[in-house]
Amino acid sequence: MRTDLDRLFNPRSIAVIGASAELGTISGQPMNFLVKRGYGGALYPINPKYQELLGHKCYGSVEALPETPDLALILVNARLAVKMLEACGRKGIEFVIMFSSGFSEIGEEGASMQEELLAIAKRYNIGFVGPNCQGMIGVPSKAYAGFGSAFIYDYKPGPVSMVSQSGGFGFSVMSLAAMEGGVGFRYVVTTGNEVGISTLDFMRFLIDDPQTRMIASYTEGMKDANRLREIGEAALDARKPILVWKVGNSEEGQRAVASHTANLSGAMALYQAAFKQTGILQIEDIQDIVDYSSAFQCGKVPCGNRVAIITISGGAGIMMTDEAIARGLAVQPLSPQTVEKLRPLVPAFAALGNPIDLTAAIFDDTDLCRKALELIIDDPLVDSVTMANAGLQGEIATKVAREVANVARRSDKPIMLGWSARKEVAGEAYALLDEVKVPHYRSPMRCMRALAALTHHAEACRRHEARKAEPLLRITSEQARADLAGATTDLAEYRAKQLLARYGIAGTAEGLATSAKDAARIAGSIGYPVVLKIQSADIPHKTEAGGVRVGLKSAAEVEAAYEAIMAAVHRYKPDALIDGILVQEMVVDAVEVILGINNDPLFGPALMFGLGGIFTEVMKDVAFRLAPIQASVASEMIREVKAYPLLSGARGRPPCDEAALVDALCKLSALAVDLKDHLGELDINPLFVLPAGRGVKAGDALIKPRLK
Amino acid sequence: MRTDLDRLFNPRSIAVIGASAELGTISGQPMNFLVKRGYGGALYPINPKYQELLGHKCYGSVEALPETPDLALILVNARLAVKMLEACGRKGIEFVIMFSSGFSEIGEEGASMQEELLAIAKRYNIGFVGPNCQGMIGVPSKAYAGFGSAFIYDYKPGPVSMVSQSGGFGFSVMSLAAMEGGVGFRYVVTTGNEVGISTLDFMRFLIDDPQTRMIASYTEGMKDANRLREIGEAALDARKPILVWKVGNSEEGQRAVASHTANLSGAMALYQAAFKQTGILQIEDIQDIVDYSSAFQCGKVPCGNRVAIITISGGAGIMMTDEAIARGLAVQPLSPQTVEKLRPLVPAFAALGNPIDLTAAIFDDTDLCRKALELIIDDPLVDSVTMANAGLQGEIATKVAREVANVARRSDKPIMLGWSARKEVAGEAYALLDEVKVPHYRSPMRCMRALAALTHHAEACRRHEARKAEPLLRITSEQARADLAGATTDLAEYRAKQLLARYGIAGTAEGLATSAKDAARIAGSIGYPVVLKIQSADIPHKTEAGGVRVGLKSAAEVEAAYEAIMAAVHRYKPDALIDGILVQEMVVDAVEVILGINNDPLFGPALMFGLGGIFTEVMKDVAFRLAPIQASVASEMIREVKAYPLLSGARGRPPCDEAALVDALCKLSALAVDLKDHLGELDINPLFVLPAGRGVKAGDALIKPRLK
Repeated sequence: MRTDLDRLFNPRSIAVIGASAELGTISGQPMNFLVKRGYGGALYPINPKYQELLGHKCYGSVEALPETPDLALILVNARLAVKMLEACGRKGIEFVIMFSSGFSEIGEEGASMQEELLAIAKRYNIGFVGPNCQGMIGVPSKAYAGFGSAFIYDYKPGPVSMVSQSGGFGFSVMSLAAMEGGVGFRYVVTTGNEVGISTLDFMRFLIDDPQTRMIASYTEGMKDANRLREIGEAALDARKPILVWKVGNSEEGQRAVASHTANLSGAMALYQAAFKQTGILQIEDIQDIVDYSSAFQCGKVPCGNRVAIITISGGAGIMMTDEAIARGLAVQPLSPQTVEKLRPLVPAFAALGNPIDLTAAIFDDTDLCRKALELIIDDPLVDSVTMANAGLQGEIATKVAREVANVARRSDKPIMLGWSARKEVAGEAYALLDEVKVPHYRSPMRCMRALAALTHHAEACRRHEARKAEPLLRITSEQARADLAGATTDLAEYRAKQLLARYGIAGTAEGLATSAKDAARIAGSIGYPVVLKIQSADIPHKTEAGGVRVGLKSAAEVEAAYEAIMAAVHRYKPDALIDGILVQEMVVDAVEVILGINNDPLFGPALMFGLGGIFTEVMKDVAFRLAPIQASVASEMIREVKAYPLLSGARGRPPCDEAALVDALCKLSALAVDLKDHLGELDINPLFVLPAGRGVKAGDALIKPRLK
Repeated sequence: MRTDLDRLFNPRSIAVIGASAELGTISGQPMNFLVKRGYGGALYPINPKYQELLGHKCYGSVEALPETPDLALILVNARLAVKMLEACGRKGIEFVIMFSSGFSEIGEEGASMQEELLAIAKRYNIGFVGPNCQGMIGVPSKAYAGFGSAFIYDYKPGPVSMVSQSGGFGFSVMSLAAMEGGVGFRYVVTTGNEVGISTLDFMRFLIDDPQTRMIASYTEGMKDANRLREIGEAALDARKPILVWKVGNSEEGQRAVASHTANLSGAMALYQAAFKQTGILQIEDIQDIVDYSSAFQCGKVPCGNRVAIITISGGAGIMMTDEAIARGLAVQPLSPQTVEKLRPLVPAFAALGNPIDLTAAIFDDTDLCRKALELIIDDPLVDSVTMANAGLQGEIATKVAREVANVARRSDKPIMLGWSARKEVAGEAYALLDEVKVPHYRSPMRCMRALAALTHHAEACRRHEARKAEPLLRITSEQARADLAGATTDLAEYRAKQLLARYGIAGTAEGLATSAKDAARIAGSIGYPVVLKIQSADIPHKTEAGGVRVGLKSAAEVEAAYEAIMAAVHRYKPDALIDGILVQEMVVDAVEVILGINNDPLFGPALMFGLGGIFTEVMKDVAFRLAPIQASVASEMIREVKAYPLLSGARGRPPCDEAALVDALCKLSALAVDLKDHLGELDINPLFVLPAGRGVKAGDALIKPRLK
């Protein structure tokens, strides 16, 4: 499939298959808008009904075209659309956008036609967009190739490109963001059912497109989600922010996805993990695109998360402080030196902590504003500055804006404003700010949200660089691969732990006994107390079957327990095939955690961490990351769960061996990568985490081979 | 303090103390704006420097005024302001707004001056607003009595009144909401340090004000928060929504509150509890005031939480579904009858689940829109309807809007639209919707948020009515009051449980032993196994002192344990005063929960519920409500915690006796009310919740008397 998409967005010629003379209809609009918006290339409407359309010669078929156009738009019904795609292929057309609906989003019949589309596109190596989409706009080439109300405007070119699975919604976002938010777009494309070029293909292309500086996306699900991380990391390398509006996160929403663009929605937890790992910014409303876009265009990168909040009315400062804290920024006091210099400049009742309330005194003296700003932005404890100007307007607004602009000009630190005055009364002020790319927002909350996005992206870039320098554990075990590749049933307990041991994850001391005497001998070599557990593929619920005894303190107790278990299990399931009874050291003083791998069909192997039992099952207090991970990411996972204090020494416990836990997660990550072709799921439950310095031990484990 | 505030907002005459001829300054603006905005009453500037100001005779002092004005504005510095307030009092002025800063927000000196203000206001029964505020606007009377950029506009009167502790921020919100969001305001007042009339006083007044239909508020904290619930309930009786923007919720934000308006910020958890109990809607940005205001003005009340989501492009539907679910609405399939009738109207690829995607086919046939809308809104499984129209514009937009308006006219169910078209291209459509008060929003997300607010408020009103009919348990115990009133130290374990028993909350079977023989005798009468626990006010940490033994199965074990505890405790603290050793039944099969009362200085007695230990301390998984509560509220608390499944039978446990737990919470609520003058804190930790039908038992308890 073609993924060098310059030609798609900048076609020299376009065929419009199924173009209609009824210009208001869906099949009439694309031709009409291409003409109206001044597309400069050759246009070939195709419809046997007409001789001519909008001044362009109309052709009876694809075959009849005088040249091979760069791009074809297909507007006919689904059944005919399949034939037209074939015709485009034969003609050698490199890019096709199919608008037609009626494919996999309507069920089985449509799905089989959709498979035909895929086969044809592959056969002819067509760069294929759609079906069930609303087209695209290449702003620089004026290729307004689509339909809908967004197409009535001429857009000014800019640095933002957007990929949207939803046509109507995507274009309405673009239109509003451009016309009211002043966002400049470059390429906007809607992808619908994504049979051919996917959202991630487009992102990959846009990362390399020098004129695209920010990528926005609306997505219901990604069929090639396993590439999300690689693409996110490429964007970090290029320092281009990716904004993703991911919908279909509730059960009900996922059902709706199925009937809309029929994209696999997948587990939101794994999308979140991928977003987190690669600094992809999630957005939640149209406004975010507008707000983040102006933040990123300021051209400045905060070196840390410490924000100084300046107000002329304390109310906004408090709210911005709450929002900053909620979004992971730090609101710390200024340095004493700065406070000392500020004090003589402001009224006695001004607050000089952080937020810094310059009070309404600014109405009487704008000089104060500049001096204070300079002192604050130069404070070494400050990484970025926000200022809330309430409804400041008129002459004084212009003066304040001028001072802000001057300070912004000579500082590398971002400065962003919350400013609620209407454009009519503060237009001059806003223009001064725009000139030096100082972002300003109508609401102080939005100002802080945008600053947080800018800060998080800068942090993600720094973290990414650091991680590239961090060692990534790789372990290969031919034996483990061979064992698992041949497995047809689950590997339970001791077999699973043997496999874990090949990757350096140690289990509890244990041995498999096949007689009571044997059990006592093993217990003696391990040391008391011990635990006995039945081992049988036929008995998945050991405790229920009476197959577990704990706290056995002597050889006599062990022998008695052995016989008792055998009897109980025999009563529970007389025909169970029994491997033996596992004699295992009994671990005390440990916190029990769960480590897991889910080899997701969409994302590939994902790692899971949480505390045992209730914390995972009831409280859903778990962290996910896509494998492989470095030690710093393992650390992040561990500290992300709410129950983390239980590991770090809450309620008078000794702190656990977190270093060993990090190590175990890295080894599990290496295992996940090494076995990704053969592994379905893996759970270590529990992993005992002993007090600091004493390591971790896998207590029990279960491995499910991957079902082909 | 005066709280009949009609005269404040509609004064017949206003004195402006400290009015300045420099009209741009803070002390120059109020007089200037009153004149400019056309205030019709008498104006008395007071400043010995001038003979005349803006055409009004200027007076040298308050005493010199020819009449007693209804309202005085004080604009002089803090020190002088105190004197001026005294002068106003002597003159008999009923209402005073003090703008001056420099009181408790600057520290101790200011705080003592603030106390003087309070004393004077009380002495003369002055309705006092401020200090450290920015005045008010009474829109109907054109009493634009304040300063700042909001005052340059003439506002159209409307049904929304607003109280804001922050002046600059409050007025900037008002101005933006009015001028860009079209919100019509009635009374807007800023309260600053709230020495006199409080936010809640204003709310109480506005609930009774017939022309106010919605109350908005920005607050940093309420000194009289104990009235929040009563006022919230009065608003529910009046069916008026209260919107509260509560800031100062982070630790850093609370610090900022102290230096801004110096209001007590209090525990956010209790504000949340009060908001939840009384259906007060929390808002988070300026936009919410605008959006909710138009939602509430639609005049329709959803009878339930089932929303039908109609789109012309599926993308918006999925996102709205996510948002609806996240906000507690239900997105359920339409009835089969409705689907059957819809099917022939729409293209084959249209999705008729919910969301209902009518697809872009609507471009070709607006009739479809009306028919579909009628069928959907009349579906008995639908309580409200939203429709997302993307960027629909021009003639077709007008047609669609006309159909929507027609349907809205003849249905009692709310219908609200997400519509992203710019006003320039859909103005006619928007006007048609405005005419019939159909709310429409630029973003589908905002549409759903607003509908959720409308739905939650309707639910709160219904719940409130139901609760008024629900019995409220009251228990009075003179003995308990007397016991606690006399207490100077904490009541621990058995004494606390004796007090609980007076309110019907049973404890474990137990007895206090003072000898080993005694202990064995008590154990025999309780039945084995038992637990032994040391009882001593000097030993708060019993386990640490070796003062607890569990699982004792015979008289011999009990006697041995008695002696062992005594020996251990003696080693631990030789001089401890010992009451004896408690012999207690050992409860098995129970889930351990915590019930608590915190008699908060701001809110009064609040009830707490959570699961034991880690769940409360580490996971912070707790529910709060203000006492008293009915059984339905107790139920709500129990089901609110994330760990609730542990009570209802997760992980193969038998379901717990939830009815008994509800009963215990109601009894604790009765206790909290009965003892509110004497109780500081109370914890039942653990309360054993036995399997269904077997009740609950207090395992341990601690009561701290209220410190005067």
